[in-house]
Amino acid sequence: MSELRFNFVTGDWVIIAPERAKRPEDFVTAGKKDDLPAYVPSCPLCAGNEGQTPPETFHIDRDNRWTVRVVPNKFAAVQYETSITRQSSGAKKSMTGAGLHEVIIDTPLHNASLAILPRDRVEDMLSAYRQRFLDFYKTKFIEHVIIFKNHGQRAGTSLQHPHSQIVGTPVIPGRLKGRIEGALRYYDDFGECLCCLIMKEELNDGVRIISQNDSFVAFIPYSALSPFHIWIFPKRHSACFGSITESELHDLAGILKETLQRLDKGLGNPDFNYVIHSLSPQECAVKYFHWYVSIVTRVTRTAGFEIGTGMYINPSVPDNNARFLRDIKL
Amino acid sequence: MSELRFNFVTGDWVIIAPERAKRPEDFVTAGKKDDLPAYVPSCPLCAGNEGQTPPETFHIDRDNRWTVRVVPNKFAAVQYETSITRQSSGAKKSMTGAGLHEVIIDTPLHNASLAILPRDRVEDMLSAYRQRFLDFYKTKFIEHVIIFKNHGQRAGTSLQHPHSQIVGTPVIPGRLKGRIEGALRYYDDFGECLCCLIMKEELNDGVRIISQNDSFVAFIPYSALSPFHIWIFPKRHSACFGSITESELHDLAGILKETLQRLDKGLGNPDFNYVIHSLSPQECAVKYFHWYVSIVTRVTRTAGFEIGTGMYINPSVPDNNARFLRDIKL
Repeated sequence: MSELRFNFVTGDWVIIAPERAKRPEDFVTAGKKDDLPAYVPSCPLCAGNEGQTPPETFHIDRDNRWTVRVVPNKFAAVQYETSITRQSSGAKKSMTGAGLHEVIIDTPLHNASLAILPRDRVEDMLSAYRQRFLDFYKTKFIEHVIIFKNHGQRAGTSLQHPHSQIVGTPVIPGRLKGRIEGALRYYDDFGECLCCLIMKEELNDGVRIISQNDSFVAFIPYSALSPFHIWIFPKRHSACFGSITESELHDLAGILKETLQRLDKGLGNPDFNYVIHSLSPQECAVKYFHWYVSIVTRVTRTAGFEIGTGMYINPSVPDNNARFLRDIKL
Repeated sequence: MSELRFNFVTGDWVIIAPERAKRPEDFVTAGKKDDLPAYVPSCPLCAGNEGQTPPETFHIDRDNRWTVRVVPNKFAAVQYETSITRQSSGAKKSMTGAGLHEVIIDTPLHNASLAILPRDRVEDMLSAYRQRFLDFYKTKFIEHVIIFKNHGQRAGTSLQHPHSQIVGTPVIPGRLKGRIEGALRYYDDFGECLCCLIMKEELNDGVRIISQNDSFVAFIPYSALSPFHIWIFPKRHSACFGSITESELHDLAGILKETLQRLDKGLGNPDFNYVIHSLSPQECAVKYFHWYVSIVTRVTRTAGFEIGTGMYINPSVPDNNARFLRDIKL
């Protein structure tokens, strides 16, 4: 018998479908990825090939070599503009595609995914995230900034070299407006941040926790949209990723690396996306919104049902998947 | 320079990104699909193998053979139940996964996709859609019914035999609630159905029209979410697919088959989903909502940006893609 579970964060029901249920082992990637070399001459993101990218906007040096490097995206979805125009006529409304779009090169090494990279280097990458996140918001016209990673072909990337992306848009995405509204309504009804409550309940239940440290907890939510859909919540309430402290950055590097290592080892280097959901630095103190990291493991495909309804069918049991990841020996 | 276009139906901005722009030809499927046989002994959906499915709920006979057949889904996401329970505690809210989930076998032939099937047979299939759509809504607990098709692996199907699906859920999807709200707000502001206006404008512009007949128009919307994202709108305003007349059913069969034929010929049998967006039969007369068919061609992949923002980046120009499809000689 299936069960519908309401996801208060996304504002929609999820169908947990045990008739279709698969064991965690069923999601192991069939074909293990090829072993990659540490350097590829034609890769624009490899150390030594810096001339193949546009001039960098940020980098971190350790022992006179960069560990993380940020460059404009050559195929930017939005571009820096000095002025914006808006047009509207009937059902046609448009505006200049102004914004910023950069690539964060996670590591100089072609074959060092976050699961393999030392924790200090993951911390450098997150430090670059924070820096560019704050910088983007200082830019005229930028209303929203999203940081994300696409790992593997099914997750939408064609570049093998480990990298992340940051995009600043001149509009606030409709989905975010909906989530803000939902979170605000919840706060107004119950006098508590929804994510703080979810975290308290998940820590209390324990069964869906993957791991935790002083500042963060990684878990598969009760109403996970898909198999191995993972949330990493900061324990300290804040609406904005930009407010992350040095020690939190250190802890996030640890839990992010560990979570991806568990996915890598448990499922055989699966394709995944992760995104950082956050409000702007101006909204850090907002009581009803809680920033977090969401990892979407691409082991299933969205089909007509999801496209048509926006609801998800999860053919697995969140508790079982969490236990599977928790039990992996690292 | 990119352009942001607002999609009034989805309620979000779309980034039309010419920096990443591809020509229509760039989306041609690299590997042409294998030629399939008309009959496969192990296929539960093939004529002759009726014993391999649960007992049928509907079929249409022509010359003593079925042309379309509807059966319960063996791996149903939701199941028929006689009672529903709801539970709620803190941030955990759940209910019985009650509902109906059936497979519509489009044709007895394993290799007859809608692009190939004669128009009369497509009409039979649509007739089965309408029948089960109306039947589903007569079932206790069913609050929303969605009809969709997954064609090809990237569209989320593993079964080759041409088939569609119909799912009745005990809840109204959050996305639909949002769209109803948006459509109602538009109607209240402008005194006109948003989709009626969009259709009038598209017919007036002409450049994004793929084809039309007495009852329907197929076009690539001004704010298409992705390359070859196609809408088929009924010219007569109605909020509900269930209100479709015999002659409209005939016209829908014609335009649906023709559109899929153009995609098939133009892009080399690409993977796609289509869904029918509709309110319930009780809401047929609602003035602000317009039912329609949406075809999503799976030639690109959604990645972190789409997951994080809900906004889409369309790396192509709607006008060019529409002309490409319109110009194909059938």
